[in-house]
Amino acid sequence: MGPFYVVLLHHPVYDKRGEVVATAVTNMDVHDLARIGKTYGVRGVFIAHPTRALRLLVEKIIAHWSIGFGAQYNETRREALALVHTVIDLDAALLEVERDAGERPILVASSARGKAGRLSFRDFRERLSGSPAPHLLILGTGWGLTPQILERADLVLEPIRGVGEYNHLPVRAAAAIMLDRLLGERVD
Amino acid sequence: MGPFYVVLLHHPVYDKRGEVVATAVTNMDVHDLARIGKTYGVRGVFIAHPTRALRLLVEKIIAHWSIGFGAQYNETRREALALVHTVIDLDAALLEVERDAGERPILVASSARGKAGRLSFRDFRERLSGSPAPHLLILGTGWGLTPQILERADLVLEPIRGVGEYNHLPVRAAAAIMLDRLLGERVD
Repeated sequence: MGPFYVVLLHHPVYDKRGEVVATAVTNMDVHDLARIGKTYGVRGVFIAHPTRALRLLVEKIIAHWSIGFGAQYNETRREALALVHTVIDLDAALLEVERDAGERPILVASSARGKAGRLSFRDFRERLSGSPAPHLLILGTGWGLTPQILERADLVLEPIRGVGEYNHLPVRAAAAIMLDRLLGERVD
Repeated sequence: MGPFYVVLLHHPVYDKRGEVVATAVTNMDVHDLARIGKTYGVRGVFIAHPTRALRLLVEKIIAHWSIGFGAQYNETRREALALVHTVIDLDAALLEVERDAGERPILVASSARGKAGRLSFRDFRERLSGSPAPHLLILGTGWGLTPQILERADLVLEPIRGVGEYNHLPVRAAAAIMLDRLLGERVD
């Protein structure tokens, strides 16, 4: 398979009232996506935020654990955070991936809402293992990605279904499950 | 299958130096385990901590989102947190499960360290689907459960393996992956 990248978008996403917003950066998202990405061999994790101050906050978190005391104190954190980069938006993430992989990645959006034509995990997993192309998985914060982003994606992944109707996983947990389903060892 | 429960132990667990400690409660663990548990039909999530002040903190978090403004503000959070209970230790969780399920649960520990005799996810999944017995999955914070806990368990689950050697998933992410592998729809 080709290199796999993840971008976490903080804008444009919905809030609980259905308005398009920029959400705040969550420290735990950065750490968890880094560790999850590192576990599953992801080549890069992009934290996309339109506000410079919040990108700088993420960069400060990364630097804290990459240099000096932090790097010595917790090496597994440093290793994981080395995957993380900040970008202003999806286009900037695309450019970074293109620069790293040498070609434009296939854009795969995720959504907690089911709809006809969504790509199944099984099919995406097969597709990945048989393709040398780079792929960029787009995750949304808040109450999910807007149609503007879904329409730009080459593929939209089916939602994670649990046991009942409840589909409000934290994006960190959804990312862990998605990467395990797509890139992890198979359990059956 | 029978009812499934999860307990997150903050003691006895290892710290990074290999000493047995009680770790601090992480707000995000409570929220994420609640949402993950709710998604996968878990019957109860226990947060075990030996320190009363930290159990009270967890209860305050739950109450904040269960009563009054919080409950109205975010209903999906309230629904998920309704699964969560605090206990002093593993024995107290066992008692609660026994009271709820009517019999002593089968204790299943998880560990990031591989070793002979670990139960595979596939076998545990099959076992669960064919058994009416209650099961209690034990998760450890910090650097993992001590042998004292692993020896008490009826079964110890194999570690989650990613793509390389890195095995430092946040317990929240490990829980999401485990429940998806054990209780989720199958992707292949």
